Amino acid sequence: MPQDPFDWIDAEHERRLAAGLVRTLRPRSADSSLIDLAGNDYLGLTRHPEVTAAAADAARRWGAGATGSRLVTGTTALHARLEESLADFCGFEAALVFSSGYAANLAAVTALCGPSTMSGVSPSVPLVVSDAGNHASLIDGCRLARAETAVVPHADPEAVRKTLEAHEGRALAVTDSVFSVDGDAAPLAALAEACREHGAALLVDDAHGLGVLGEGGRGAVHAAGLAGDADVVATVTLSKSLGSQGGAVLGPARVIRHLVSHARTFIFDTGLAPAAVGGALASLEVLRREPGRAARVRYVAGELHRRVTAAGLTAVRPDAAVVSVRAPSPEAAVRWAADCRTAGLAVGCFRPPSVPDGISRLRLTARADLTDRQIEEAADTVLRTAPAA
Amino acid sequence: MPQDPFDWIDAEHERRLAAGLVRTLRPRSADSSLIDLAGNDYLGLTRHPEVTAAAADAARRWGAGATGSRLVTGTTALHARLEESLADFCGFEAALVFSSGYAANLAAVTALCGPSTMSGVSPSVPLVVSDAGNHASLIDGCRLARAETAVVPHADPEAVRKTLEAHEGRALAVTDSVFSVDGDAAPLAALAEACREHGAALLVDDAHGLGVLGEGGRGAVHAAGLAGDADVVATVTLSKSLGSQGGAVLGPARVIRHLVSHARTFIFDTGLAPAAVGGALASLEVLRREPGRAARVRYVAGELHRRVTAAGLTAVRPDAAVVSVRAPSPEAAVRWAADCRTAGLAVGCFRPPSVPDGISRLRLTARADLTDRQIEEAADTVLRTAPAA
Ligand SMILES: Cc1ncc(COP(=O)(O)O)c(C=O)c1O
Ligand SMILES: Cc1ncc(COP(=O)(O)O)c(C=O)c1O
Repeated sequence: MPQDPFDWIDAEHERRLAAGLVRTLRPRSADSSLIDLAGNDYLGLTRHPEVTAAAADAARRWGAGATGSRLVTGTTALHARLEESLADFCGFEAALVFSSGYAANLAAVTALCGPSTMSGVSPSVPLVVSDAGNHASLIDGCRLARAETAVVPHADPEAVRKTLEAHEGRALAVTDSVFSVDGDAAPLAALAEACREHGAALLVDDAHGLGVLGEGGRGAVHAAGLAGDADVVATVTLSKSLGSQGGAVLGPARVIRHLVSHARTFIFDTGLAPAAVGGALASLEVLRREPGRAARVRYVAGELHRRVTAAGLTAVRPDAAVVSVRAPSPEAAVRWAADCRTAGLAVGCFRPPSVPDGISRLRLTARADLTDRQIEEAADTVLRTAPAA
Repeated sequence: MPQDPFDWIDAEHERRLAAGLVRTLRPRSADSSLIDLAGNDYLGLTRHPEVTAAAADAARRWGAGATGSRLVTGTTALHARLEESLADFCGFEAALVFSSGYAANLAAVTALCGPSTMSGVSPSVPLVVSDAGNHASLIDGCRLARAETAVVPHADPEAVRKTLEAHEGRALAVTDSVFSVDGDAAPLAALAEACREHGAALLVDDAHGLGVLGEGGRGAVHAAGLAGDADVVATVTLSKSLGSQGGAVLGPARVIRHLVSHARTFIFDTGLAPAAVGGALASLEVLRREPGRAARVRYVAGELHRRVTAAGLTAVRPDAAVVSVRAPSPEAAVRWAADCRTAGLAVGCFRPPSVPDGISRLRLTARADLTDRQIEEAADTVLRTAPAA
């Protein structure tokens, strides 16, 4: 062997170590006593007895796996029921379930840019207009699509309008509904208007909106009055508010039919495991029956924000469940999160390079099942452990 | 609205309809009486009572979802156990679990091409040498990687050698171990030799080898004597032989540590659902205890091949579980598969554009739990429904 082909990895590791950027996994136990403000189980459904029982039943009834891709053996009647239920709940004509929200986003962006066989019909390369704060999976979708990508400033419908104006031919604007780092909402109505002026389609990743925003948790697209519109497509994940795993694309029936024949992460991926399908279906049923969970999680987020800012910390006013609290430096953020953990509170910690603006923050996620007492305790812990300003 | 932004989808649909290429989903019921030679449950473990019980228990004990990305809350002690068990079974130093084999492949290809921050160290763009028959997820990995990709003829180590020879700097050769369409095996030993001559790394997607090839189903990389080598990385899926969902990357500890900090489909994706983790762990335990399942599935594949070719059909000699039988045309393949189904046998049907060579085929997948009687019946059905030559 003339050289070791992975020696560069050690050099890269040294550089990250020096910069304090090495990440390590910390397996958790089933009976942790931490208050969890780090996960995305916004509605507190992942351990709900109805949800876990439905997941367990689905595994026993259908098997531990889907056994094949969706077009071969991987579509069970349970998958079809979940697709109907999701489309109905969120107000769309049709839905298609994927093995993750990540895969759903890759599928939506690439397939909506059209296959290369379109060249005869629409000779110009389609344009994707993508918000600078979009999730990694949308960005990877743009990279995979055979399209031109224009990255526009964050939450700026005017920039989207101008970019569309300058383009001839098909275009798609892509945005998160609620941005995962700061928890701020996208200006969906204004974005839809800009798109419509130019005949462009709008794709919204409602990962953090489903279960939290809109009437009874129907999501940000529903809240903006855009659900079911002919030119709007949404993606969701089943792994946050629905406490399970998987993702889905929601949209006009013809768009969903198109994805079935064209989306590579649909065609060449094993279907979602029955347990995850069953769990998500049960969560949707709980949410239909208890729509107050959506309002509760927004209240909890507001309370967390109110308490930490009242005591002088800088935090973004939450539009959904995520409360982003500014930290003075990456090192301070890491120490702060560790001190919270020692005090019994799990919080998220975002620092470069996973935040595009280079600002480190604690990330607190509200949950509908936190008691008033736990909210108070959690806010106290964050304040007590805060680095000196 | 000046135009409907999705009208092009209808035009595309018409074109596919005319070409007979529209695909539709067919939800299956839990109690189908079909003999299944279409799925990838090679060892018959997806409905094994120990496996479904483990999946159900994991959902009840840990919740229906992982609640967050692996670096935040999405790593449970169960994930860590599965990673140890997989690495140990397959003979690698370490393993990292993903939400799908697709995501594992995207991660492995992109992260092994190195981050853009490497420019100071290794100024040349890395080269990926990719087999023309590789799975869609490896191809998408190449498209996402910031590397130059050279597609080489199928299963041709000499072509890999020449391509590496002509390149200065870091390189990675990428191949399926068993190709999903024809079920033929890659020449792994010769590929490793070609890579070593030029200091290149070798990445093998062992999706169809795990559970089928190698001692007790340890996979094709193990069978080739390459497992655990410093310059070899493998990916596997948990959704075929292990009857569950998810994927993993296996390799040297430093490669796995690198993926934890760099792989986007690891960092920005929710952890695999506990039920899928538990199911895969239980399947591995059954396989350790009953290593004969791997030999049995190879025997079943050989028998299916023997019977259909003895009667005059053209089929590729199976290197693993997949038996690919040639069909005269896309239409004949579709009709043949439908006639099999009517006769009680589910088979796969591959036709353009999902086969790169344009040849349509029936795809029969062997299962370790088929009885001799079922093998006979299945082969008879395939023969009885075969189109006239
Ligand atoms: C905005 C956003 N979109 C998509 C995803 C991916 O969803 P999943 O974890 O189901 O792959 C996430 C997080 O995981 C997210 O935060
Ligand atoms: C060769 C190969 N690699 C990777 C995959 C993807 O694995 P998964 O279905 O777990 O995403 C598949 C099939 O699904 C495959 O056939």
